[in-house]
Amino acid sequence: MNEIKIFSPATVANVSCGFDVLGFCLDSVGDDMVIRKTDKKGVFITKIVGFDLPYETELNVAGVSALAMYNAIDVDFGFEIEIYKNIKPGSGIGSSAASAVGSVFGMNELLGRPFNKTELTAFAIKGEAIASKCEHADNLAPALFGGFTLVKSINPVQILEIPSPSDLYATIIHPQIEIKTSESRAVLPKEVALSDAITQWANVGSLVHALHTNDYNLLKDSLHDVIVEPHRSKLIPHYNDVKQASLQAGALGCGISGSGPSIFSLSKGLETANNIKEAINNVYAKTGIEFDIHVSKINTEGVKIV
Amino acid sequence: MNEIKIFSPATVANVSCGFDVLGFCLDSVGDDMVIRKTDKKGVFITKIVGFDLPYETELNVAGVSALAMYNAIDVDFGFEIEIYKNIKPGSGIGSSAASAVGSVFGMNELLGRPFNKTELTAFAIKGEAIASKCEHADNLAPALFGGFTLVKSINPVQILEIPSPSDLYATIIHPQIEIKTSESRAVLPKEVALSDAITQWANVGSLVHALHTNDYNLLKDSLHDVIVEPHRSKLIPHYNDVKQASLQAGALGCGISGSGPSIFSLSKGLETANNIKEAINNVYAKTGIEFDIHVSKINTEGVKIV
Repeated sequence: MNEIKIFSPATVANVSCGFDVLGFCLDSVGDDMVIRKTDKKGVFITKIVGFDLPYETELNVAGVSALAMYNAIDVDFGFEIEIYKNIKPGSGIGSSAASAVGSVFGMNELLGRPFNKTELTAFAIKGEAIASKCEHADNLAPALFGGFTLVKSINPVQILEIPSPSDLYATIIHPQIEIKTSESRAVLPKEVALSDAITQWANVGSLVHALHTNDYNLLKDSLHDVIVEPHRSKLIPHYNDVKQASLQAGALGCGISGSGPSIFSLSKGLETANNIKEAINNVYAKTGIEFDIHVSKINTEGVKIV
Repeated sequence: MNEIKIFSPATVANVSCGFDVLGFCLDSVGDDMVIRKTDKKGVFITKIVGFDLPYETELNVAGVSALAMYNAIDVDFGFEIEIYKNIKPGSGIGSSAASAVGSVFGMNELLGRPFNKTELTAFAIKGEAIASKCEHADNLAPALFGGFTLVKSINPVQILEIPSPSDLYATIIHPQIEIKTSESRAVLPKEVALSDAITQWANVGSLVHALHTNDYNLLKDSLHDVIVEPHRSKLIPHYNDVKQASLQAGALGCGISGSGPSIFSLSKGLETANNIKEAINNVYAKTGIEFDIHVSKINTEGVKIV
């Protein structure tokens, strides 16, 4: 096998109470990528469709993660990477993670899987770091493993796969505005009240328990964020209206996807997810801000060959 | 049935990262209680053996929780309570919780179980409050439900039963010193670093996952407390030596039980738990401080009729 086509999915990180640790994988949105062996040694980005991203391997997220893996192997051939980008950079649903994951996953397949997913995460972190200016795996983990993931640590990489109910859907609105990373970081408090932290970790514990036990009511009770949402939600126009409409339409919970501006809702069943889409659409249609909305089942597979 | 004998177990609260929310139940230590119907209406403490505690119903933990339940029912008889106290008050393994739980559990049995365990928790909270000066269910929940519990909230009472591996043992050392509640509260920080809080909730999430998946290695990786232990451990003489000896003897984790002075270790299997007992004994035997050590399987049943 010399060429492989990959679907690398969008993901939601910072799931409510699970700021910086919990993420999940989408299946209706993602990038397509082609990875190809080539006689020339090295890693080469040969095609980028969709968005204006750098072709220089060392400046490209997919290129940097691919190089991290390439430098760990000893082969007499190279790799070409084509990127068909559907996830808009900066949208808050793991655009850079999809690129970082796609290249290392595809190369690993062409090489006969010498690396496990934890090792792939470590390579992908290097690519993700050039996009987000820090090493984190919040989006990489769900893109690679699928489903819900908990990033226990990144040094060493330790990813936990949390099971989730089979009928869980996400509705994601992406308002077409830009939030600067520096701004979304600047609004985070450096210190938090111990009482709030306790509330948050009670919710994290109960969210993990709810996912293990398919307890939708407990999911609803646990999807709260008393630490980050109060600060970051101010950066997203009409956030509270979207949240209110989403919950009224039956969402189990609603929160900021990654560092925004996308907003996710979780719900039981496709019908409710579509009702939420309509409710959110009604809110945002009045704002004059361009947006799109996706409905997606939780993708338990993650990145895959197509 | 007019009389019932109860075993009400000791418990460990504030399990490492799960400060204020996670607890577990012991089976080798606990109080015995006798609850008896009596013609005279009201609740009466008729016997207390072991420690000097008040006989006035309104001043006794078991009495107050019993009264909370008694006031919620309408019967033409009363209850007598005998308390054979084995758990030393102030030892940090849920002495007051055992009293509060035993009376309401026993009365509920004699009444034909009109209340579920969540409702019993709410009554018991009233008794616990007079001992600890605040309403909390960290020890009540594991005493009533058994096993590992997560107190999701106390208003309303919401207790989650987290499964645990069958071969999990606790070793508990109780140094015979007094730590004033006011002092153990005073050392707690009001604010904590967001980065520490994130580490803590990652550990809580992964601890719950480890308990669900019987993953002892992950239990070991998760039983860390970066928030409270650094402050409260200073109040317990030789804490760090005990912890080091315990971990070297094979403990999965070691932490402060409740607000101390007891220290708990968790381990896989009775043999390791006994090795830990010996290692801790060697540390404390040199200190001149009186102490006792218990080894206990995790008690999955909780309070029970004997």
